[in-house]
Amino acid sequence: MTSRDLGVPRLICQIGVPLAEQSALGHNRWHPDIPPAIEIDPGGEVILEAPGYDDYQVHDDDDPAELHHVDFTRMHPLAGPVHVHGAKPGDLLDIEILGVEPLSGVAFSNILPGTAGILADEFPTGWKSVWYARGSIAESRHVPGVRIPAQPHPGVVGVAPSHELLERWNAREAPLAENGQAFAPEPRNARLRGLPPEAATTAARTTPPRENGGNVDVKHLGPGSHLYLPVFVEGGLVSVGDHHLAAGDGECSWNAMEMDGVSWLRINVIEDGVARYGVKTPILRPAPIEPRFGADRYLAFTGFSFTEEEQRFQDTTLAAREAMLRAVDYLTRFDFTAEQAYTILSVAPVDYRISVIVDIPNPCVTLHLPIDIFDRDVLPRSSRNGLRQR
Amino acid sequence: MTSRDLGVPRLICQIGVPLAEQSALGHNRWHPDIPPAIEIDPGGEVILEAPGYDDYQVHDDDDPAELHHVDFTRMHPLAGPVHVHGAKPGDLLDIEILGVEPLSGVAFSNILPGTAGILADEFPTGWKSVWYARGSIAESRHVPGVRIPAQPHPGVVGVAPSHELLERWNAREAPLAENGQAFAPEPRNARLRGLPPEAATTAARTTPPRENGGNVDVKHLGPGSHLYLPVFVEGGLVSVGDHHLAAGDGECSWNAMEMDGVSWLRINVIEDGVARYGVKTPILRPAPIEPRFGADRYLAFTGFSFTEEEQRFQDTTLAAREAMLRAVDYLTRFDFTAEQAYTILSVAPVDYRISVIVDIPNPCVTLHLPIDIFDRDVLPRSSRNGLRQR
Amino acid sequence: MTSRDLGVPRLICQIGVPLAEQSALGHNRWHPDIPPAIEIDPGGEVILEAPGYDDYQVHDDDDPAELHHVDFTRMHPLAGPVHVHGAKPGDLLDIEILGVEPLSGVAFSNILPGTAGILADEFPTGWKSVWYARGSIAESRHVPGVRIPAQPHPGVVGVAPSHELLERWNAREAPLAENGQAFAPEPRNARLRGLPPEAATTAARTTPPRENGGNVDVKHLGPGSHLYLPVFVEGGLVSVGDHHLAAGDGECSWNAMEMDGVSWLRINVIEDGVARYGVKTPILRPAPIEPRFGADRYLAFTGFSFTEEEQRFQDTTLAAREAMLRAVDYLTRFDFTAEQAYTILSVAPVDYRISVIVDIPNPCVTLHLPIDIFDRDVLPRSSRNGLRQR
Amino acid sequence: MTSRDLGVPRLICQIGVPLAEQSALGHNRWHPDIPPAIEIDPGGEVILEAPGYDDYQVHDDDDPAELHHVDFTRMHPLAGPVHVHGAKPGDLLDIEILGVEPLSGVAFSNILPGTAGILADEFPTGWKSVWYARGSIAESRHVPGVRIPAQPHPGVVGVAPSHELLERWNAREAPLAENGQAFAPEPRNARLRGLPPEAATTAARTTPPRENGGNVDVKHLGPGSHLYLPVFVEGGLVSVGDHHLAAGDGECSWNAMEMDGVSWLRINVIEDGVARYGVKTPILRPAPIEPRFGADRYLAFTGFSFTEEEQRFQDTTLAAREAMLRAVDYLTRFDFTAEQAYTILSVAPVDYRISVIVDIPNPCVTLHLPIDIFDRDVLPRSSRNGLRQR
Repeated sequence: MTSRDLGVPRLICQIGVPLAEQSALGHNRWHPDIPPAIEIDPGGEVILEAPGYDDYQVHDDDDPAELHHVDFTRMHPLAGPVHVHGAKPGDLLDIEILGVEPLSGVAFSNILPGTAGILADEFPTGWKSVWYARGSIAESRHVPGVRIPAQPHPGVVGVAPSHELLERWNAREAPLAENGQAFAPEPRNARLRGLPPEAATTAARTTPPRENGGNVDVKHLGPGSHLYLPVFVEGGLVSVGDHHLAAGDGECSWNAMEMDGVSWLRINVIEDGVARYGVKTPILRPAPIEPRFGADRYLAFTGFSFTEEEQRFQDTTLAAREAMLRAVDYLTRFDFTAEQAYTILSVAPVDYRISVIVDIPNPCVTLHLPIDIFDRDVLPRSSRNGLRQR
Repeated sequence: MTSRDLGVPRLICQIGVPLAEQSALGHNRWHPDIPPAIEIDPGGEVILEAPGYDDYQVHDDDDPAELHHVDFTRMHPLAGPVHVHGAKPGDLLDIEILGVEPLSGVAFSNILPGTAGILADEFPTGWKSVWYARGSIAESRHVPGVRIPAQPHPGVVGVAPSHELLERWNAREAPLAENGQAFAPEPRNARLRGLPPEAATTAARTTPPRENGGNVDVKHLGPGSHLYLPVFVEGGLVSVGDHHLAAGDGECSWNAMEMDGVSWLRINVIEDGVARYGVKTPILRPAPIEPRFGADRYLAFTGFSFTEEEQRFQDTTLAAREAMLRAVDYLTRFDFTAEQAYTILSVAPVDYRISVIVDIPNPCVTLHLPIDIFDRDVLPRSSRNGLRQR
Repeated sequence: MTSRDLGVPRLICQIGVPLAEQSALGHNRWHPDIPPAIEIDPGGEVILEAPGYDDYQVHDDDDPAELHHVDFTRMHPLAGPVHVHGAKPGDLLDIEILGVEPLSGVAFSNILPGTAGILADEFPTGWKSVWYARGSIAESRHVPGVRIPAQPHPGVVGVAPSHELLERWNAREAPLAENGQAFAPEPRNARLRGLPPEAATTAARTTPPRENGGNVDVKHLGPGSHLYLPVFVEGGLVSVGDHHLAAGDGECSWNAMEMDGVSWLRINVIEDGVARYGVKTPILRPAPIEPRFGADRYLAFTGFSFTEEEQRFQDTTLAAREAMLRAVDYLTRFDFTAEQAYTILSVAPVDYRISVIVDIPNPCVTLHLPIDIFDRDVLPRSSRNGLRQR
Repeated sequence: MTSRDLGVPRLICQIGVPLAEQSALGHNRWHPDIPPAIEIDPGGEVILEAPGYDDYQVHDDDDPAELHHVDFTRMHPLAGPVHVHGAKPGDLLDIEILGVEPLSGVAFSNILPGTAGILADEFPTGWKSVWYARGSIAESRHVPGVRIPAQPHPGVVGVAPSHELLERWNAREAPLAENGQAFAPEPRNARLRGLPPEAATTAARTTPPRENGGNVDVKHLGPGSHLYLPVFVEGGLVSVGDHHLAAGDGECSWNAMEMDGVSWLRINVIEDGVARYGVKTPILRPAPIEPRFGADRYLAFTGFSFTEEEQRFQDTTLAAREAMLRAVDYLTRFDFTAEQAYTILSVAPVDYRISVIVDIPNPCVTLHLPIDIFDRDVLPRSSRNGLRQR
């Protein structure tokens, strides 16, 4: 990806430098009043570079010790916001993601102690894998025998909330935050591009995806995709960050293949689009270019709403977790450690499907793992037959 | 699909005749002791015809009145069981679904009053659509302007549970059944191929998918797919039914495109496969042949773990429901009724993805709807530009 | 595929009975005056069954001797013609191929002595492979270790020529026919549905594809595809035959996987379409459903406009032949005989591409062979590394 | 694509500077003795930047006048050669193309007067279109309403011929060169990295693809693809150039979307691979990542071995030309000029297939054009029905 001769405005990220020391670049909270970093006309383009989710706290080495000290209050360093002239509340932004690329070419998939995703209780210890973007593929010395096709995309694409929407978020998430089930506003390490410090006491954390998009973590938001977001404040105020070199649906281990990256956007305005199309949460259109596996070059693991200990009623989260447990266990039969398996399932382009959600009491979640990413045959085989069966 | 000259054994279903009157054909409960209807050798093939899930209670007319009287105790009429010589507990069956086809060519997608799936509260009234299998496409006079590529597959493929497993099911589901959240054993209308009536007091209902497969309702189990199921009793005892002419992930309205159908199976045995591969729930390999839409010929709707009234913690079922609500509402902007929209989303090949499940408190479920099934343009458009934007 | 309850008119073929003994079924020459076998309205549907190209001369056994006696004057037994009410010269027929299926389920791929396609000189001896349609896959006892996904389609879909067009064909092909490079009209074994015998002295043979479609042998004409054909006579007069269970681009050995089959058509009329769209030769739209291999699960062989003996100028036919020779030779390194290899390359879904045609003097033809049809690994491997490289 | 921190050796091309002024970069003829520009170990990687085919003779403006003065003796400026330690004659190089990207982001598709490809006689006048790489899509102000997904790839990847092979080339092409049907060696503007000037009297021109690969112009050689080339001299001596931002099969107008670009290669050695696999011409494995159109989102035009004036025997080149003529004419019905249409068909990802090559005397070539690149509906429609038919 290049824009050398094409004259597109660009926010530049200095590789390795935390957001706090790149004050022109962006912010790490959602707030209506953050001043724009750049302005464009409708139909215009912009190129936004951003550090990875960790704000350069994780390093390219083989030591997971630093994972115990990642400060989540620095999340997510975002590039922007971009003010789109004329965009007004009630409009819909058609954000076309023209291109996405790695910045340094180094990515991480971390199993963070205490925050290790859907199987956190099974993985109490930290583990790190470093991945290199070698052209269109990603490889890691920590997961030999696996090649992941790069599918770069921003995990976060969002717009500023209105004051009213921000209040609604804070009100509805506060009860959960008190139980440690959500992140309350946190002034420490907040970066708001010059807003007075008191703004940080209400500015929203960027972890959950919400009505404004944000950390939707949809792997389909690659080059050529569109994200349709409602406008809540004048100019829309679009920001981008949390790039992934690749990711599975679910981002199960709490990390995709996390990297510093760059997104090239073209932003159109659909006037009055929110009412015309009844938009309450983001709509998206997937990328046209993708790794194309054979339709039957997947192995899918099922999970239901029961475990060996309990039966729940229509608990899709449990079904998803069970499918993941089955997949991790399966891969350990093929010379992968549990950490490697869990990481593979978090960074490979897995499809995590709700195959049925009405057969009470058991939803069926299927986790589809592409088998051609492996240098070995991972299909179940009869011991009677040495030949591959298709 | 034909087996006229190929000599494959076949269970024949008489079109329009309920299971109770076709005693040789099959059964409608899971129980270890149901006598086999047919026996084959490992690697052998069998062709199984079965009525639709409704056991021919629903008819090809325009009157939804009969939907108030569907008797669920007749579900699911299954063809089988098939005894595979030599298959023993601990083995894994590799069930290849060589072919699947409609039987009568008529299929139904019903919105059943009181049992209308994930949005049942929004659709209290019955509604019926009749679909015809016209070669490889499905069309309905009740949903004009929509063509669904046929993707025939059995909703139910299962093996008999052991006595011990059956007891476990009954124990764990009983508390839910008392609350109306699961189906308790029900002797009325039970068909067990000659087992004494008392067996029906413990035989499991076929609604939920479980360790034995059963009603997994995975749309990827089309021609060429494989389902790997543990063997719990001698011979495995494989049964098939609940064919769909097409289905979306989720089967959200409680009905896919339901039909009488026929499945051609080849069954191999992977000795000791359960322990070798650590199988606790079914594993599957998707079909190699599928409708191939353009990667960007989808529109995806997002749902999170909140509504306008409440915020929940990591409730993926709620997120799925919210995404579905958004999609139904969106389609009503394009001259579809809500019933049509809900039905389309239940029978079209939608992908229902858990895009992220670790960004507390909000999972993000995305419902990907293929746009080329419509005879109209359903993309969001700027009013400024009459031309299509790709 | 079924039309049992859908009331679609159907021409029935008796399996194993030559066309001459099924006089109601169809014809085997192109002529403007052949009386219609069936009439439909625009937008109407029809189901057409036909013997295979060989008119039941080839049998399911292991003996190629009969291949020396195949009488080509019986080609192609076609079902039809279908008269479409109101279709008139200058209109364009939109022939949608709703469904295609095997009839007997038995198919053949023959290497016919003296007529063995692009490599006829290399394969002077007859060889036969018998393939069974086992649901969605095709297998042959003569080519073990290979599974071909079924992609049923009619090789011949055509309309009647006008008298003037028929004269043009005869005039332009006569010089070639005199050299044995084309087939002259041949009254022997001609079937014209009651036309006086003298018609057979000018009726066109069905081997070559022409302006009327006919034997286009395009593997993309499967279920859901459209073929747009000009109307030359009142009613269009559509006929179908020469079904293939599967085929590669090129049909290199002179045989695809040849079978008796059935096509379900819906025919619309685009008034004045020939002039509106400037149609001189058929236009088609491929089938939406297809075997989906991984984009990189192919191995492609190149051929250029030179051999070891000679250099030609822009000879794409030679380049195609050279690529085929390379592919046959390559497969013989993996325990296939040359006959098996040549047959595989003729029946598997290979893509035969003109990759470049302007780099004088050498066009580059690439023959893309899907590798997942094999039970063995056919990729080139370094001897240094036992592991698969993706 | 980035290699900033990954330490991969790189040949740097100065944008806008002709090869002659970048003496370290590469060469523009094939010769066994050209000294390597860089050396790597087997399994090693290298990044090669190169000017476009025109060596920066064509400029980003709207004036085709300069096209009359393009000097073809400067073709193709190649980066390299790369010496792979230990590679020796008889080995096979497995050249994995890890990544490919634009360099300046500006590309050209030229209709060059007198050299305009397969329809040169129809396009005697020059015409130029300038394309910009906007992330993953290519757009041109000269062809509004069309968006081409970027599919960057090198048109030329080749190895040095042996002296013996070079002699064979010169001998076999000389007779054609005398008729203007091939390019004879030409010392003018030859660049051979320091070889004495007399070498240029035998060094081969780079226009045609040959046994060493070279200008194969295969659009499937994108990121993740493999090209398997025989080694003819010690070290193999790999060179790359002639990058395309996108291309159709055929490269029919003599130009794809031509650009300066960069290829990232990993080169493995398969010892004795030429004999083991019987390799005479290059073998390749396509890229795993590609624009994925719907299987039925194509319109295909047919061409046969006849024109309105003549009937030829099995002339695939003529059939290809006829299919192209039909496609150009068709697109002019949708508000494109003939120049625009011809260019679209040369740069869009069209599939140019030999659908059948054995139905004498007429091969059938089908040109499959993706329809979703257009902002307008280009399907044939009945005038009776305003709605889109899928």
